[in-house]
Amino acid sequence: MADETPFDDDDHFKDECGVFGVFARAEAAAIVTLGLHALQHRGQEAAGIVAFDGEQFFIERHIGLVGDNFTKKAVIDRLKGNRAIGHVRYSTTGGSGLRNVQPLFAELADGGFAIAHNGNITNAMTAQRALQHQGAIFSSTSDTETLLHLVAMSKEKDFTARFVDALRKLEGAYSLVCLTSKKMIGVRDPLGIRPLVLGDLDGAYVLASETCALDIIGARFVRDVKPGEMVIVTDAGLESSFPLEPQPSRFCIFEYVYFARPDSSVEGRNVYEIRREIGRELAREAPVDADMVVPVPDSGVPAAIGFAQGANLPFELGIIRNHYVGRTFIAPGDAIRHMGVKLKHNANKRMIEGKRVVLVDDSIVRGTTSQKIVQMVRDAGAREVHMRIASPPTRASCFYGVDTPHTSKLLASRMEVAEMANFLRVDSLGFLSIDGLHRAVDGAPRDNEKPRYCDACFTKDYPTRLTDRDGADTVRKLSIVANNG
Amino acid sequence: MADETPFDDDDHFKDECGVFGVFARAEAAAIVTLGLHALQHRGQEAAGIVAFDGEQFFIERHIGLVGDNFTKKAVIDRLKGNRAIGHVRYSTTGGSGLRNVQPLFAELADGGFAIAHNGNITNAMTAQRALQHQGAIFSSTSDTETLLHLVAMSKEKDFTARFVDALRKLEGAYSLVCLTSKKMIGVRDPLGIRPLVLGDLDGAYVLASETCALDIIGARFVRDVKPGEMVIVTDAGLESSFPLEPQPSRFCIFEYVYFARPDSSVEGRNVYEIRREIGRELAREAPVDADMVVPVPDSGVPAAIGFAQGANLPFELGIIRNHYVGRTFIAPGDAIRHMGVKLKHNANKRMIEGKRVVLVDDSIVRGTTSQKIVQMVRDAGAREVHMRIASPPTRASCFYGVDTPHTSKLLASRMEVAEMANFLRVDSLGFLSIDGLHRAVDGAPRDNEKPRYCDACFTKDYPTRLTDRDGADTVRKLSIVANNG
Amino acid sequence: MADETPFDDDDHFKDECGVFGVFARAEAAAIVTLGLHALQHRGQEAAGIVAFDGEQFFIERHIGLVGDNFTKKAVIDRLKGNRAIGHVRYSTTGGSGLRNVQPLFAELADGGFAIAHNGNITNAMTAQRALQHQGAIFSSTSDTETLLHLVAMSKEKDFTARFVDALRKLEGAYSLVCLTSKKMIGVRDPLGIRPLVLGDLDGAYVLASETCALDIIGARFVRDVKPGEMVIVTDAGLESSFPLEPQPSRFCIFEYVYFARPDSSVEGRNVYEIRREIGRELAREAPVDADMVVPVPDSGVPAAIGFAQGANLPFELGIIRNHYVGRTFIAPGDAIRHMGVKLKHNANKRMIEGKRVVLVDDSIVRGTTSQKIVQMVRDAGAREVHMRIASPPTRASCFYGVDTPHTSKLLASRMEVAEMANFLRVDSLGFLSIDGLHRAVDGAPRDNEKPRYCDACFTKDYPTRLTDRDGADTVRKLSIVANNG
Amino acid sequence: MADETPFDDDDHFKDECGVFGVFARAEAAAIVTLGLHALQHRGQEAAGIVAFDGEQFFIERHIGLVGDNFTKKAVIDRLKGNRAIGHVRYSTTGGSGLRNVQPLFAELADGGFAIAHNGNITNAMTAQRALQHQGAIFSSTSDTETLLHLVAMSKEKDFTARFVDALRKLEGAYSLVCLTSKKMIGVRDPLGIRPLVLGDLDGAYVLASETCALDIIGARFVRDVKPGEMVIVTDAGLESSFPLEPQPSRFCIFEYVYFARPDSSVEGRNVYEIRREIGRELAREAPVDADMVVPVPDSGVPAAIGFAQGANLPFELGIIRNHYVGRTFIAPGDAIRHMGVKLKHNANKRMIEGKRVVLVDDSIVRGTTSQKIVQMVRDAGAREVHMRIASPPTRASCFYGVDTPHTSKLLASRMEVAEMANFLRVDSLGFLSIDGLHRAVDGAPRDNEKPRYCDACFTKDYPTRLTDRDGADTVRKLSIVANNG
Repeated sequence: MADETPFDDDDHFKDECGVFGVFARAEAAAIVTLGLHALQHRGQEAAGIVAFDGEQFFIERHIGLVGDNFTKKAVIDRLKGNRAIGHVRYSTTGGSGLRNVQPLFAELADGGFAIAHNGNITNAMTAQRALQHQGAIFSSTSDTETLLHLVAMSKEKDFTARFVDALRKLEGAYSLVCLTSKKMIGVRDPLGIRPLVLGDLDGAYVLASETCALDIIGARFVRDVKPGEMVIVTDAGLESSFPLEPQPSRFCIFEYVYFARPDSSVEGRNVYEIRREIGRELAREAPVDADMVVPVPDSGVPAAIGFAQGANLPFELGIIRNHYVGRTFIAPGDAIRHMGVKLKHNANKRMIEGKRVVLVDDSIVRGTTSQKIVQMVRDAGAREVHMRIASPPTRASCFYGVDTPHTSKLLASRMEVAEMANFLRVDSLGFLSIDGLHRAVDGAPRDNEKPRYCDACFTKDYPTRLTDRDGADTVRKLSIVANNG
Repeated sequence: MADETPFDDDDHFKDECGVFGVFARAEAAAIVTLGLHALQHRGQEAAGIVAFDGEQFFIERHIGLVGDNFTKKAVIDRLKGNRAIGHVRYSTTGGSGLRNVQPLFAELADGGFAIAHNGNITNAMTAQRALQHQGAIFSSTSDTETLLHLVAMSKEKDFTARFVDALRKLEGAYSLVCLTSKKMIGVRDPLGIRPLVLGDLDGAYVLASETCALDIIGARFVRDVKPGEMVIVTDAGLESSFPLEPQPSRFCIFEYVYFARPDSSVEGRNVYEIRREIGRELAREAPVDADMVVPVPDSGVPAAIGFAQGANLPFELGIIRNHYVGRTFIAPGDAIRHMGVKLKHNANKRMIEGKRVVLVDDSIVRGTTSQKIVQMVRDAGAREVHMRIASPPTRASCFYGVDTPHTSKLLASRMEVAEMANFLRVDSLGFLSIDGLHRAVDGAPRDNEKPRYCDACFTKDYPTRLTDRDGADTVRKLSIVANNG
Repeated sequence: MADETPFDDDDHFKDECGVFGVFARAEAAAIVTLGLHALQHRGQEAAGIVAFDGEQFFIERHIGLVGDNFTKKAVIDRLKGNRAIGHVRYSTTGGSGLRNVQPLFAELADGGFAIAHNGNITNAMTAQRALQHQGAIFSSTSDTETLLHLVAMSKEKDFTARFVDALRKLEGAYSLVCLTSKKMIGVRDPLGIRPLVLGDLDGAYVLASETCALDIIGARFVRDVKPGEMVIVTDAGLESSFPLEPQPSRFCIFEYVYFARPDSSVEGRNVYEIRREIGRELAREAPVDADMVVPVPDSGVPAAIGFAQGANLPFELGIIRNHYVGRTFIAPGDAIRHMGVKLKHNANKRMIEGKRVVLVDDSIVRGTTSQKIVQMVRDAGAREVHMRIASPPTRASCFYGVDTPHTSKLLASRMEVAEMANFLRVDSLGFLSIDGLHRAVDGAPRDNEKPRYCDACFTKDYPTRLTDRDGADTVRKLSIVANNG
Repeated sequence: MADETPFDDDDHFKDECGVFGVFARAEAAAIVTLGLHALQHRGQEAAGIVAFDGEQFFIERHIGLVGDNFTKKAVIDRLKGNRAIGHVRYSTTGGSGLRNVQPLFAELADGGFAIAHNGNITNAMTAQRALQHQGAIFSSTSDTETLLHLVAMSKEKDFTARFVDALRKLEGAYSLVCLTSKKMIGVRDPLGIRPLVLGDLDGAYVLASETCALDIIGARFVRDVKPGEMVIVTDAGLESSFPLEPQPSRFCIFEYVYFARPDSSVEGRNVYEIRREIGRELAREAPVDADMVVPVPDSGVPAAIGFAQGANLPFELGIIRNHYVGRTFIAPGDAIRHMGVKLKHNANKRMIEGKRVVLVDDSIVRGTTSQKIVQMVRDAGAREVHMRIASPPTRASCFYGVDTPHTSKLLASRMEVAEMANFLRVDSLGFLSIDGLHRAVDGAPRDNEKPRYCDACFTKDYPTRLTDRDGADTVRKLSIVANNG
């Protein structure tokens, strides 16, 4: 209902997925549950696990948190076997509810095939239409299902060949963890846009989106799966190959800015340390004379610590976050809905009163939440409010598995920095430069000839084709609205 | 859990489905809800409706009674449009829950296609394996999905041609109601094993499994859809054709014995009157000297009325049925579980004490319930207990959409009538003869050369091939056990 | 919501409760579950059980059917001990949900006390106000709670004396089953308005509203508890006393007409036989020339059998009842709501067409359902429709535990018989006379000096004072509307 | 079930309640919802609201978070009126589920009376037994219900006199917010053990446990309600009185250490600033040579910031908390259960490796969680681990509304500091001294003659009688175990 819009003041790009798998390990599904729990920040709306016990596949897919659904003994007991893969997802858009929750599963001619996908196939709709003309029946609106049908329809002889044949038809970003009756497969797209790491749990291979999911189960980090690499785990061990044309890596730089958990490490570097370094770089690029550095909790904390260290200012909790706000908190009452942001954040008046405050946040998307936070800090009596953002202005949508508002909703696509400062009613506003960001992450400014990362949301420099977007049929209306249960 | 086996003393063959559709009528989904409610005796475990509003299809499928799920305003409001079809089903076997609930829906290359099916395709598994080798991905274990894929994979040019092409590959029993963006289609298999009738609701065409579903909405009965006939309803009206090779009709005679509702009429004859006639025939064939005729409620009532009229004995309610027993009533406590049948039936002691009682029931499947009822009537003090069954002994499984126990569980496949009488501890036991049954239904004994009905459950004379059963691969273990929600 | 009024075409007085108890028997709560299941016709909206294991009382109270709530192993396992009492209730009016579901329980100074009540205390509100001024805090709107507080506040010395002291302050109708840490107590009010029977289950005493609840567990019927009698069951056996001033019995005659189950016996007479006798009496009093006798199912069946026997006319199932209609069936869609009665009943057209039909029902309350049924039978083509009612016109409300509409809603309080016939559009209408009813039940016409039964709903001759109704404060508005859970 | 013990590594004392009320303000219940949301840290297991619209009281009580239950439009719409009070509670111990959820409500002789209570009555059981002998029937196991009955049973003439009469019979800690048909009442016990503040929302009076609940609705902080003070808000305004014998204040010092939200202010001092000061004091008392200060998130953060400032060491997020762990997270699988603490916390390996780390936490209760965290930090490669606790050792149970383990479970009651250091496997362990704590909070060491705070959990110096504990009957077993729903 119109008056029950869920409260969501979390003005961030949302990563859409996390993936995890373990092969040949007792209590595999329970291990996957823990891995998914550690990856919950990558997708908190739904989760699924597929396990295989040598004879049958068992699948459980539920809307809600991992901890609310997969810690029940009955659920875990149903997920028999010593091989399992899992998936968490951010959104269940498309009105199709559980049908889009992963892992997806298909009974192919040569057996069961389950797939968990982080990323987005940028030619999925185009491929789907071709497949439908060949007689494929789609049961979800997920781009991932396109891959299932490409495998099923492939004329290649054995399963692996059909799988590679299908991958070669895909464009976009994908880190995949798949399970068949014989194999667990991990793949990263040729540009390595989304992360995928390999771990070792007492001899059992583990695949995960981030290292924090290895830590939770005490698995040893082995290495990142490489861009374009396919690793196949069987009873005989792990086999690596590069079936896709190799290209220079373009890892998503926003994983460092916001998506990844601070305790994860990517490409050998710790995310927290990079964020702190981003804060220090920001203090160098956009210094300010003030009394204290206050993070917008929780995502602004690491950069704020770095900023405080770089600027030699005290780091203080001037804003308190109420952790009891879930995504579904709805402010009751019409008049009351306008109180807005305080459901989640409260300024600590006594701390802030009369002070010159530097607010540090990781990014600005629409800007509405930032505007309310600034107002709240002003209402609490701050003498000056300076905002520092630990990334460049976000100007463009992501097509690689991140939920971004339409470009026209992005504050930075509508305003210059000075206008934004005015809109946010801050005494000063500073963003990190794109070179500063690359420097903090990689030690060197952006190489515009050969950029080392995908930073398209800041630069509009998309590293792949965007076939669906550029095709005539991009906006195909779904013809079915389903409600099962 | 082992100790929570649902109580089920309903020892009957179970019909598996009812279908219904209406075209070009306001509040179509609400009309379908009423039709399904009237067909609930054909399937009470799950129900589904697909509606189409000219642009989109809307589907709702729920486990549970029609009255519990489809009478909510929110549900009906979501089912927009003036065309809708629906389905009730008896069982959701296969562990796959909602995925097998119908109508099924597929997005084909030329648009949406929904299907509701009563019957069973006897070569579905065989066809499924061939389709999988062509790249089809099945998302349910339903034989009906095979039809969807046959349509999708057909090389014929237009939709109707593809649909007929697919039908021609099917064996078995099917009464189908389908919906596309342009058409509502009704089809009966060439033998007309399952019923399907055509009605008219103030000018809008209606398709339904039985006439009682026309009565509930005040629709006029037009005629039975004929065996092998396909009727296509569009905005231009109704078109009839016979795309399938015509064969002599073999309507299921058990529909008269038990499945159909007594107030329905099939092939121009009223089911209640036939059942009463069956009772009279039974009184002629197996007379008995007694004080009263007592039906096993509720299914034995019409035949008992006929028997009492034929035998000129008083008809009395000597057994009372507790209508609060659902299929899920579980007798609590270990010791108590053995009290068994009284959860549902109680003998009226004061009525029965010292009397010679004729118990009349419609059929015997396993015989365990009958045994308990006889014991209950004896415990209530009956001097003699005579059992009369309003059909021949059921000796064989049905492969045409009826849930029957394995042949080895059928009492009549294990014992002769004398042994059965002994097993049931009755003073006498009489079944209607197969000729008597045909006589009551049709006025003449069975024509063994050209039987007018499918009576395979009594005679083992199956009117179609049983490809899956006879093939080597019939018992294919499903490789996926899913739990979504 | 206004447009989701639950469908209820069941135009009957509703009995409000059934009670049951068992003492010193293993699996006591499971036994009570079965007893309540057999009494479900006396109240189907909520049920509760209190068990005692020698140390603690365990209580479970749930809205919904016994079979849906009390057959779960976990529920029964929580109800430990070898003594238990239970209650089913018809309505949970008062908006207070579970708080009015019985048994009620109170921790008194000398221990726990649970009570299950069938009937209605006619001075409960008056007594409640007095108790509140003494400091009693009521936690429900139930008249039964008044009894709890009267016991708690009594100045008598021991528990039994306090209990009797409380009973003496009550007016109205009550059959009670109570449980303390030492005793199970059964009491009937001095007029014995509501039934209560004593049974024996392999040496364990059982109390139940009706004998059908003894039958389900195989208990032997011992005798009716007598009007004004209190039976106390302890480890030492059963003790009977008559602490309340004895009065001539006034058992509710409507129990014979409709409330009690046909297989129960009351005061040594079988209910089904009485109803059949009522039908025969009705055939004598109001004969009609017709082709068939058709019961309004299910409640009209026994009287219709008697009528058919008395009138020597064929008994036929001309109306079929759909048992899948629960009380919550809501006809979907605005236009559709007017189709009304067919959700539950359908006339069997082929049977009825061109025939002169006698419809037999047990009673008429508002008359709206009867009107629709007559119309349905006419629409099915009946040539003549004669209605015969197996009781006198119901003209007055019941204050003894039966849910009756306000007098102004009763058809018989607004119209003479001729008007009613016109309203119902029948060719003739006949009610049983009050003398006929007494004759069928008791062998003699009503003794107007000393009536043997409470027949106030027909005669307005109430056998007790109606203190709350006659007091100024009867209609006290509740000050609390609660919603817990 | 034994193997589904909820995961709870939150080794803290748990505050049991928060209270809130607003008088004469539109959308009162929605305002209370927001207030309770801000107080959720004081009790997250259940919440309730009572509203009054001038005629009726409306009550909603639900288990679960405020945001999950009270933000639904239907719930808020049922809570009509411009006066409302609410309550959040930590535990629902006693197996009695919703019956203990507050506000409690009683229909007294002179009208409705609702009460929300933070604290604990230390003579409740003793008073309850006396009341039961007078005829009171208790419907919950809550100490708060004792107050209801004391008011109901009081012989004083008007309501306020009866309420004060009842208060005078209470011992222990209580901050109460009550609602009658005329008044909202706030009371603090004579020692002022629990907090209660008065606010002003555009002219409407507000009562709340903490100032953060005023901030969320934009209410102005007026003042703390004083120890022993009763404020009565009516349409005529606010009236203050001191009906209870005045005593020197003994506010709970643990509110500063852990319970209160850092952005609240109590007695004019900001909680975050006090915690940071505690950290600085701790750095003075227990300095350590190390590379970084790492808080145990989230509760150790303010003291860690203070410690880092005091010790001039870098403050770093060396431990990351997973906010998706609710209280019900159950580690799946037997083997896996031993992985324990990582479900909630993960050490940031790359940060910590080879470093000397000072861990700062607010308190230690059982010590098991601290032990696991230390091990986790060691496993991450820390060279040295020093633990600093921002309070003295907790040696004694609280009887004033805080859920504390039995004394024998408290680490500090079983071990000296050196033993604890050994048990925790830290290189050094330091607690703040009791004088240091008083100094940080109040600027001066503890005045042992006239302590300014209740610090009994550290000192065993209880400021009130503990009648129930000291009486013979303290441990009275409940005689009823109920399950309604």
